[in-house]
Formats: sequence, C-alpha cells, structure tokens
Amino acid sequence: MKLINYNKNTNLIKLLKRNEEEQDDIRNAVLEIIKGVKKDGNSALLYYTKALDKCELTHLQVTEEEIQEAYDAVPESLLDIMREAAINIRSFHEKQLEKTWTYAPLPGVILGQHITPIERVGLYVPGGKANYPSTVLMDAIPALVAGVQSLVMVTPPGRDGKINPTILAAAKIAGVHEIYKLGGAQAIAALAYGSETIKPVNKIVGPGNIYVATAKKEVFGKVDIDMIAGPSEVLIIADENANPVYAAADLLSQAEHDELAMPILVTTSQVLGEQVIEEVYRQIEEDLNRKLIAKKSVDDFGFVFIVKNLDEAFSLSNEIAPEHLELLIENPMNSLEKVKNAGAIFMGPYTPEPLGDYFAGPNHTLPTSGTAKFSSPLGVYDYMKKSSILSYSQDALENVYEKIATFARSEGLDAHAKAVERRFEK
Amino acid sequence: MKLINYNKNTNLIKLLKRNEEEQDDIRNAVLEIIKGVKKDGNSALLYYTKALDKCELTHLQVTEEEIQEAYDAVPESLLDIMREAAINIRSFHEKQLEKTWTYAPLPGVILGQHITPIERVGLYVPGGKANYPSTVLMDAIPALVAGVQSLVMVTPPGRDGKINPTILAAAKIAGVHEIYKLGGAQAIAALAYGSETIKPVNKIVGPGNIYVATAKKEVFGKVDIDMIAGPSEVLIIADENANPVYAAADLLSQAEHDELAMPILVTTSQVLGEQVIEEVYRQIEEDLNRKLIAKKSVDDFGFVFIVKNLDEAFSLSNEIAPEHLELLIENPMNSLEKVKNAGAIFMGPYTPEPLGDYFAGPNHTLPTSGTAKFSSPLGVYDYMKKSSILSYSQDALENVYEKIATFARSEGLDAHAKAVERRFEK
Repeated sequence: MKLINYNKNTNLIKLLKRNEEEQDDIRNAVLEIIKGVKKDGNSALLYYTKALDKCELTHLQVTEEEIQEAYDAVPESLLDIMREAAINIRSFHEKQLEKTWTYAPLPGVILGQHITPIERVGLYVPGGKANYPSTVLMDAIPALVAGVQSLVMVTPPGRDGKINPTILAAAKIAGVHEIYKLGGAQAIAALAYGSETIKPVNKIVGPGNIYVATAKKEVFGKVDIDMIAGPSEVLIIADENANPVYAAADLLSQAEHDELAMPILVTTSQVLGEQVIEEVYRQIEEDLNRKLIAKKSVDDFGFVFIVKNLDEAFSLSNEIAPEHLELLIENPMNSLEKVKNAGAIFMGPYTPEPLGDYFAGPNHTLPTSGTAKFSSPLGVYDYMKKSSILSYSQDALENVYEKIATFARSEGLDAHAKAVERRFEK
Repeated sequence: MKLINYNKNTNLIKLLKRNEEEQDDIRNAVLEIIKGVKKDGNSALLYYTKALDKCELTHLQVTEEEIQEAYDAVPESLLDIMREAAINIRSFHEKQLEKTWTYAPLPGVILGQHITPIERVGLYVPGGKANYPSTVLMDAIPALVAGVQSLVMVTPPGRDGKINPTILAAAKIAGVHEIYKLGGAQAIAALAYGSETIKPVNKIVGPGNIYVATAKKEVFGKVDIDMIAGPSEVLIIADENANPVYAAADLLSQAEHDELAMPILVTTSQVLGEQVIEEVYRQIEEDLNRKLIAKKSVDDFGFVFIVKNLDEAFSLSNEIAPEHLELLIENPMNSLEKVKNAGAIFMGPYTPEPLGDYFAGPNHTLPTSGTAKFSSPLGVYDYMKKSSILSYSQDALENVYEKIATFARSEGLDAHAKAVERRFEK
C-alpha cells in the first residue's frame, strides 16, 4: 500500500492505471461464437457448452423441479436472510418508479412522457468460483419492480450440469421467469439473437468475464446492454477522528474481490494514514479466506493519499469517481453536495460497504473504474423506457405552422414543410 | 409502396430488414485513426482533417468572432424561429429534471439517491449536405438544462475551413461552451481521449455516418455514448376516417430523410390504404427538393399494412417499435396505454411529425430501427447520473450485522463479514 502526499502535480492517470487493452484474439473468438449461435441455434449452444464448459447438456432450460430441489438444499436461515434482503431491495427500488406524465403548456397543446417497461430482459449470472446470489437479487428485483414481463436468467452449468443452489434459490426469491444453463459468449449470443428454445431479449445486464463483456459490446445496438463492468474500487475519505480498524477492514472487504480491486484511503491525517496501512497488513495476516487476492490488491493497487483538507479530498475523489465512496468524517450528510462522481455513498462509521453489498436496499451493481463520471447504479430506470407524447389542436398548429415550414426549408427538407402546410391549404 | 394484408404469419423481420452488416475494413480504418489521435494528438487531428475533409486548418477551435460572424449572417426571421423553438425545447426538458431525494425507512436509517450532471459532454454534429441546426438545439439544450458544465461541439469544416452559419447560430442560441472543427472518427477520438487543446469528455452524443458510429462504439466504455442511430421510420396508425392527404404528406416527410427511411401505414381500412398509396405517388410528382430520395424510400421500404382492428394495429406497431408513431384515429389519447414501444407519439390530425422535429419541445433525437424497444428519446436524464446514498446508525447496523456476515460468508467473502463484525467486537 503506497502512501502519497497528494498535490496538483500528482499524476493520477498513471498512478491508478490498471485497464488492460482489448485483445483481438478474444474478439475474434467471440465473433465466431456469435456467428455460430446465429446460424445453428440450439445445436451451437450445446456444442459450445460441451467444448467450453465441459458439460454435456440434454436440455437448456432449468426445470421447476431443479429450482425446487436447489431451494430445498439451501439452509432455511440463509433463505430468511435473502428474503429480508429482497424486501429491502424491492422497497428501495420502488422509490425509483417513474409514472407517465402530461401537461398543457398552451391551450390545445398536450405534451408529456409515456413510461413503459422493457418487455424482455436477459440477466447474465457468472458461474464457477464466483457464486453471488446477492447479485441475482440486485439485478433481478429492479427489473420486476419496473414491470419487465419476461426476465430471463442465464448462468453456466458446472461439469455435472448443475447450477449452484443458492443462485437458483435467489432467482426463485426474486421471481425470475426463465432460467437457462448457458454461460460465456454463447449465452450472450443466445439472448441477443435467440434460438429454437430461447426467445431473444431486448436488453442484457449483469457482470461476466472478458468473453461475456466482449460479447455484450458486440451485440450492443441489436439489444441494449448495461455498462461493461471493470475492476472495482472503494475510496474512503477519513478525517483524523476516523477509526483505523474500521477503515482497514472496509478497504480489505473491497480488496478480497479481485487482484485488480483498488482500495484507496484519502485522509487529512498522516498519522491516520500510517495507522490504516499498518492495520491493513495486520488484518491480512489474520485468517482471511481470500488472503492472497486481498494482499495482491493492496500491494499493487492500494493507496493512501494525504490531502490538505476535506475540499481537496472531495476533489480527488471526484476525479477518481469511485464505485464505493465511504465518508468517515464528522456530519457526512453535510458534505453530500461536494460529491460529484461516485457509485454509492456510505455515510459514517456504521455504514460499511458490505451493508450496501448485501442488505440495505440500494443496488450493489455500481459503475466501476471511474465510469461513475457518466453512469449510475443499476436501477428501475435501466429496465424502463420513455416515449414522448405530443398533441396539438387545429388552432394550436395553425398558430405556428408557418414557422415550422420556414425552419424545415432552411434545412432543405421541404416535404417536412409541406406536411404542415397541407393542413391549412384552402 | 407495398400493400400487405397483415396476419400472424406475416414475416416482419424479413419484410422490414434493412440493416447493413458491419464492415471490418471500416472498423480497421477507425481503429487506425483512434490510435493516431491517442498517440499524436493535435498533429494527428490536423493530418486527418486534411486527408479526409480536404481542409487545411491552422486552429481547431472555432473563435468567438467566427461564431458572431455566422450569427450575423443568418436571417433575423430564422433566428427568431430558432429562439422560439429553443424556449419550447428548454421548457419541455425542464419537466424531466430529477432532484436528489432521501427517506428514512427505519429509525437510524437514511437511504436515497443523489443526482448530479455529467461534467463534460461532447456533441457530434454532422457537416456537409446534412445541415441540421434543429439537431444542435435538440441535443444541446437538454445537456444545459441538466447542468453540464462543459458542452463541447464538434463538426467537420468545409474545404474552406468554415462551418455552416446556421449550425453555429444554433450552437450560440443553445449555449454550447466550446466548438471544434473536427469530423469523422478523428473527432470522436479527440472527444474520448483529448489532445493538447481538447480536454476529454465523459460522454459523446449525436448522429453521424458509419465512421462516426463505429468510432463511438469503439470508445464506449472509456466514455458513455448515446444509442447508435440507424435508419429512421414513421408508422401511422389510421382508421377509415383519417385524411389520406395528411397521411401521405407525413409519410413523405419521413421518406425524404434517407433512402433507407421507412414510411409505414397501418390501417383498418383497405380503401384508405389504397388512397394513401395513390396520394403518396401524386405528392412525389409535385415539386419536392428531395424527390429521388423520397421515391426510393417509398418504393423500397414503404408499406401499407391492412389490419383487422385497432388492437392488431397497436400490436403490429409495438412489434416494429417505430421512431415516430402517428395516431390518425378517434380519441388517440385514449389509446395511449396500448403503446408499448415508440420513440414519440403524435396524436391526431394536427400533430404531424415535423411539429416534433422542429418546434413543440420534446426531443427529435429518438430511438430508430426498432430500438424503441429498449431506449428512450434523448433527454435530460442522458446528461445526469445518480449515486446511491446510505446512512446507518450504530443501533441500526447492530440489528442486522449478523445477517450481513452470514450472507457474505455464504459467498465466500469473509473480509466482507469481518468488516461488519469488527464494529461490534467486545
């Protein structure tokens, strides 16, 4: 973990660089798979699942019996926790629901916005070692709150053809409509283009490996996709009164995700900065499941920035645009207006990141790697779309049609001009 | 224009197909340009502008004097119309502004959503024959309503190094902050990666040719982009009382845009369908600036679908998801709930598409080619982003921390579990 005295000349871009370049061989492999699925449908899907997931399937869709069996295999205590988390997630996301609105700016004129759910959405859920039922809840529940009619989950099977039972249990709790045993680029291709058994969707969301991300980028346009997730980060702004044990623990909860995860402390106190570094390495040496991953993340991408004051701390944080921003400072809510770019903001010593990852209700699918500069947490709005509403009476149009015709002709579009003029020809 | 008796077996996908396949040679040329701009900055920009736009520039940024000169060259009557349109556009888009909100679901718990503008946005405006000041207003004003601090316009210069004066006048009326003489993939690369004189942006919006669209797709992830625009369409749902002259004129106002534009009538009346076809060809033979384009669009992609009833008309329209939907039927507002997928909905005989293209206020940058199934008109929401807000008191966290720890451990993430547990260690 590097301690840096931050100033205006600090080269953040160089310091925080961890993005890998796109690889042409991966793109070519993905294009090949997409072409195969478009051409051969189910037989291509079974072929790639055998070749890549080492699993011979007889059917792609997970049956009701398989789902029930998985549900019964999960401890009741964990089911209870997932159900309570689901209630919190649903309750928060219901606040995001927008309704159709209209208004009358002038007599005879009605304008507005018609808001409707996307009809059919695909949800990618990674398999293998990454077994995150919390992500199933976070990605699925806002879609169902939005009113998505067909929510289709895909997740790669193990070699035994099975899917992790907590993943299936979470899908059942959330209310997912269809589940298919498919992973990788072939799953994305199936969602975008369909097959004999899978109807194509309108949008694909959810995290995945580089093959999944590349495939999502390729099918973008045919369907919508959510932001491509990169490595994630937590940035903690701490003043001299912050508890170094809490700060270190929260940095490590990010670091254990991924060797490329970035745990950052920004503090006005050099003393605290040094205490946190010491505490991070002390906690790593305790018994951590994912000690090696956490250590590599901390060593390679862990930073403590010492700043002059909190204004500079927020300015640095806005430049980094962290996925998770924790404020371990006095009266954090008073500093809300200083936050320009962040995925989620965790206020005060009793709002650690895992509270948001699992339980509080706001989404844990957040913009990573600085994309909080232009994107938002996954939400109900990602599963809805808008249509403008326009209605003019004869009088209202008559008042303005000549201006419209003049504007249209200035662009050389006289069929546009004539379309309004013909309404008022004698 | 083809008349089709629609039924369940009508193969819409085959019938309405007009998308071209992506071309690898274009992608390679675009990648080369992006690489050049990343490496050589301004000198690459000047080089490509000379090579591709046949224009030798000495400076990239449009000066205040050039803007004023252009403004003075536009007729006052047209400036007045653009100013009035700008007021309407601003007024409609102000209704879309969302505010930060918080609420307290439980004692000691505050959740919410912090809403902020994207800081710096690039706006691509095509040059050459396509001279659309209305698009400058439509793309720029929502950004300024959102509170974007730096709105940067790029548009290719003519061979004389100049930009169309109405484009510059529209930019001045809208309030664009910076303008650069740049087009094609090099403009997109400059916006995404910056150069010595251009600071990189966080998001790029606006239409462009295949090179621009391909470049936008390539830089997606580094920056956000709006939906890639494809060929556009109007779909008119008409009953037997609709005026065939109006319907034909509105179909042609779409057809004159592009040989790939798709003018579609869906009607319950075979008589009306035949009248409209006759009227379309009669109006084409009148004096139209863009007669050849309109005729090719109508011949190749013009369709009249005869349906059994209005329910079938809406179901067909929802399947096509038109950019523009006109309802030439009785009490169109009563049918709003039947519209699932459409960019903008034009209600009744005095709400023709050009009213929305130029003047009424709702955006004319709309999802094309069926993408209304998953995307929305350009709006203030495209220029803003959200951050979740979470705040728990000690008591509130104490009530739930064990559940969070259990959930985290079920996913194998015990540093997550420890981050909450350490808060309550004795």
